[in-house]
Amino acid sequence: MQVDELQTPALLVERSALRANLDTMSAALPGERLRPHVKAHKCTSLARWQRDNGHPGFTCATIREAEVMARAGLGGDLLLANEVLDARRIGKLIAEGARVTVAVDSRETIAAAAAGGVSEVLIDVNVGLPRCGCPPEKAGELAELARRSGLEVRGVMGYEGHLMLVQSAEDRARMTREAMALLTGAAAQVGGEVISAGGTGTYLANTCATEIQAGSYALMDTAYGELGLPFEQALWLLGTIISVSGGDSGTYAVVDVGLKALGMDHGPPAIPGAQVWFCSDEHTTFAPGALDIRVGDRIRLAPAHVDPTVALHEAMYLVDGDTVAERWPVDMRGW
Amino acid sequence: MQVDELQTPALLVERSALRANLDTMSAALPGERLRPHVKAHKCTSLARWQRDNGHPGFTCATIREAEVMARAGLGGDLLLANEVLDARRIGKLIAEGARVTVAVDSRETIAAAAAGGVSEVLIDVNVGLPRCGCPPEKAGELAELARRSGLEVRGVMGYEGHLMLVQSAEDRARMTREAMALLTGAAAQVGGEVISAGGTGTYLANTCATEIQAGSYALMDTAYGELGLPFEQALWLLGTIISVSGGDSGTYAVVDVGLKALGMDHGPPAIPGAQVWFCSDEHTTFAPGALDIRVGDRIRLAPAHVDPTVALHEAMYLVDGDTVAERWPVDMRGW
Repeated sequence: MQVDELQTPALLVERSALRANLDTMSAALPGERLRPHVKAHKCTSLARWQRDNGHPGFTCATIREAEVMARAGLGGDLLLANEVLDARRIGKLIAEGARVTVAVDSRETIAAAAAGGVSEVLIDVNVGLPRCGCPPEKAGELAELARRSGLEVRGVMGYEGHLMLVQSAEDRARMTREAMALLTGAAAQVGGEVISAGGTGTYLANTCATEIQAGSYALMDTAYGELGLPFEQALWLLGTIISVSGGDSGTYAVVDVGLKALGMDHGPPAIPGAQVWFCSDEHTTFAPGALDIRVGDRIRLAPAHVDPTVALHEAMYLVDGDTVAERWPVDMRGW
Repeated sequence: MQVDELQTPALLVERSALRANLDTMSAALPGERLRPHVKAHKCTSLARWQRDNGHPGFTCATIREAEVMARAGLGGDLLLANEVLDARRIGKLIAEGARVTVAVDSRETIAAAAAGGVSEVLIDVNVGLPRCGCPPEKAGELAELARRSGLEVRGVMGYEGHLMLVQSAEDRARMTREAMALLTGAAAQVGGEVISAGGTGTYLANTCATEIQAGSYALMDTAYGELGLPFEQALWLLGTIISVSGGDSGTYAVVDVGLKALGMDHGPPAIPGAQVWFCSDEHTTFAPGALDIRVGDRIRLAPAHVDPTVALHEAMYLVDGDTVAERWPVDMRGW
């Protein structure tokens, strides 16, 4: 099948770029040094490529992601890097043979893990991002409570998410060292072997973590694209030009890729060579600049934020240039 | 089933608010004066309530929406208020007995409609929003071309989308009159009976259109909520508090509703009584203010933009306060 036969909008993954991104990351962080985060692609077909690149464990953000991974045979060592109050579905997965470690950061989430049939946890530590995670000085106390509740504490996690998009690599590295000093301190109190942290923006700078939870590196987006990382844009939205007009503000064109196909929290998508004006539910209006754009043409857009973009699609298409190689269901959507 | 038993995040529709919104709109624009836009809810169960309120025709934004509506028995008079370059799937629906009128704004989209088996079109006219739509002065010429191509031209459409969120009702009304003067001029050249336009922001101000394409009024969002319209917030995101912390900036809490559950192009959601800080993929961090928030509590968030929020969910739950009445699949997602 040719790319031009796809119904638009369609999510495309350029195989050569994906291959290069996975290989670059696996060379830098081989085997268990990387615990790929599946929230960035929500696709077990892609996760299999990551496993085949040598990474046995994965990071999940939702119970659904853990369930689908386990049922796809990828549940050998899953980390649910998020707090849950009802852990029964995780307990069920474990009873079925999956290994799922769950993040806890409070008395309540420890109680929920124990009640739900979870056996292994990480103490989630706040390293500067105001989200989940206990204060570093409370980590030892929570670890003790978890052990008294019958849970095995594998170690700590602490996500420096507030540093991922710091533009200067030097600042990012310094701030990551400072954040990770908090996590190492907590790890000394908690015990265990695991220090899980990091992401695509800090995968090299974070030399403290025993494993890095990067996800975006595989497909990339324009926000990460600005950091000068050695990863290429592999994910594109394919759209069809449905209207071209001349107006007082010059020529503009409309492509059938809009808010329902694009995560918008990092802003609008990019169209190489053109200037995006705005997005509507099913449209992006842009000034084509020097591009020769006609109604019926197909163009590619790069999303600003990969994770919520992927979550809007039923499938992504693995392509080699103009040829569709495979259809990969985005099978970890929902909760 | 009780609302507290739902897995979070969950999309809730408060039945009394939905009922009131539908009745208020149907009283203002009875029968064919309203052509509800299904893009705002993507749910045939909700569309049935609109039909039962007396509205026989619907507006769609995508081919998929038209297909699902037709196959749900709601295809008696559908308007695909959007341009398509491959109309074969629409032609197939028409061959199966649905009535689907398609918007055209160019030589190419007219050719595509004729080639795909479409029989009825509206000429889409630009009334000020730089998106689809031909210049008003070209509308007659396109209507003639469409008729020569064997298509029946039912009239015109022209969406004043740039005016929907103008804050002052007086300005909105004046600007709507100006925009609709362009559409009436085009309608005179084109002929036909239909002048289709309008939305939730202009449903009263737009007295020129023969039918109004409003959709958001049924469920509402915080952006439309600021206009002082007689519609209530019926759509809520139910979340669970998974973490509460005290920090230098005061106490903050984290609810498990994030970018993958919320359309973000109009900004973050609102939590009544609290101050939202930011959203991550699966989290919203907020300052609870005077609210007494504990880990495990459930709270409701109001989305800033209804359409892309709904598109992220498999289902919405019709609720009466704390009781779940029905599960409604969001069955018109995708393309």
